[in-house]
Amino acid sequence: MSLATHTTPLQIRPFEPADWPAVWQLLEPVFRAGETFSHDPTITEGEARVAWVEQSQAVMVAVVATGALVGTYYLRPNSLALGAHVANAGYVVADHCRRQGIGSRLCQHSLQVARRVGFRLMQFNLVVSTNTAGIRCWQRNGFQVVGTLPGAFRHRQLGYVDALVMVHALVAEPTP
Amino acid sequence: MSLATHTTPLQIRPFEPADWPAVWQLLEPVFRAGETFSHDPTITEGEARVAWVEQSQAVMVAVVATGALVGTYYLRPNSLALGAHVANAGYVVADHCRRQGIGSRLCQHSLQVARRVGFRLMQFNLVVSTNTAGIRCWQRNGFQVVGTLPGAFRHRQLGYVDALVMVHALVAEPTP
Repeated sequence: MSLATHTTPLQIRPFEPADWPAVWQLLEPVFRAGETFSHDPTITEGEARVAWVEQSQAVMVAVVATGALVGTYYLRPNSLALGAHVANAGYVVADHCRRQGIGSRLCQHSLQVARRVGFRLMQFNLVVSTNTAGIRCWQRNGFQVVGTLPGAFRHRQLGYVDALVMVHALVAEPTP
Repeated sequence: MSLATHTTPLQIRPFEPADWPAVWQLLEPVFRAGETFSHDPTITEGEARVAWVEQSQAVMVAVVATGALVGTYYLRPNSLALGAHVANAGYVVADHCRRQGIGSRLCQHSLQVARRVGFRLMQFNLVVSTNTAGIRCWQRNGFQVVGTLPGAFRHRQLGYVDALVMVHALVAEPTP
């Protein structure tokens, strides 16, 4: 983790409705690329807002000193009632701001929020195996690979590629 | 696998609206028990119908010679667009018909249907680790454990227990 991680002034705060156009600017190229999220690459702006904002328990944005919005994440239960103590999150960082540790900051922030609101485990269900920067980032932040789902993601460029399930405990003893 | 597996006359056919009361009779005790499915144990009949029938791509029922409905399963995509080639399924067998291989018959049938409609992988996301009969049944039918999610299921009797992710390839090469 570079020093930049801790020196870039970055505010992470709850999403507000006025943030949506800037959030969509971040999400659109990522969804269109079809390389990391499972959404249909032809997703509409309205569908994306439902998926990112309305279906989430919390949405956060990362803002730099200039006021520019450079990242966002969502946090939500990963499953129904008897699995609702497991959190799920997704992160997007502006392309021109990569390699500055912003993804790590968002990840750490999401783990803190998840722990604070009572989740016991954070789980990523479909980490695309070719997303090596993301995987490295999450591993640096304490996530472990639980297993590999063969060919579970249809990468827009590469076709069927493996996907990983990753988890991070949020309590000392997930199984008491 | 006992001989009974192949000798019990059992018809597996698509769910019809008139089957719902009998299907709900199968589902209700299982959902109320809170030991295998993540649904809220206080789920209403209407919510259960949405969850089992309306949110599925296919629902099947198993009927014995007397006409009694003794099992059911659903089949649906496990994820959004770029993960929609992975199937998910869930099975329930009447309590008084256990140990007759009906679960295996449903499982084999679901794999055939999933393959026929073009799915490439079948995935179970949250197999409760204490459901040893289910796990053995799925392993006998070719499923493999991908990994373990620590404490991911809140068992109504046992508290937080581990859950397994299991998969079964439906094509020769899931990652071409």
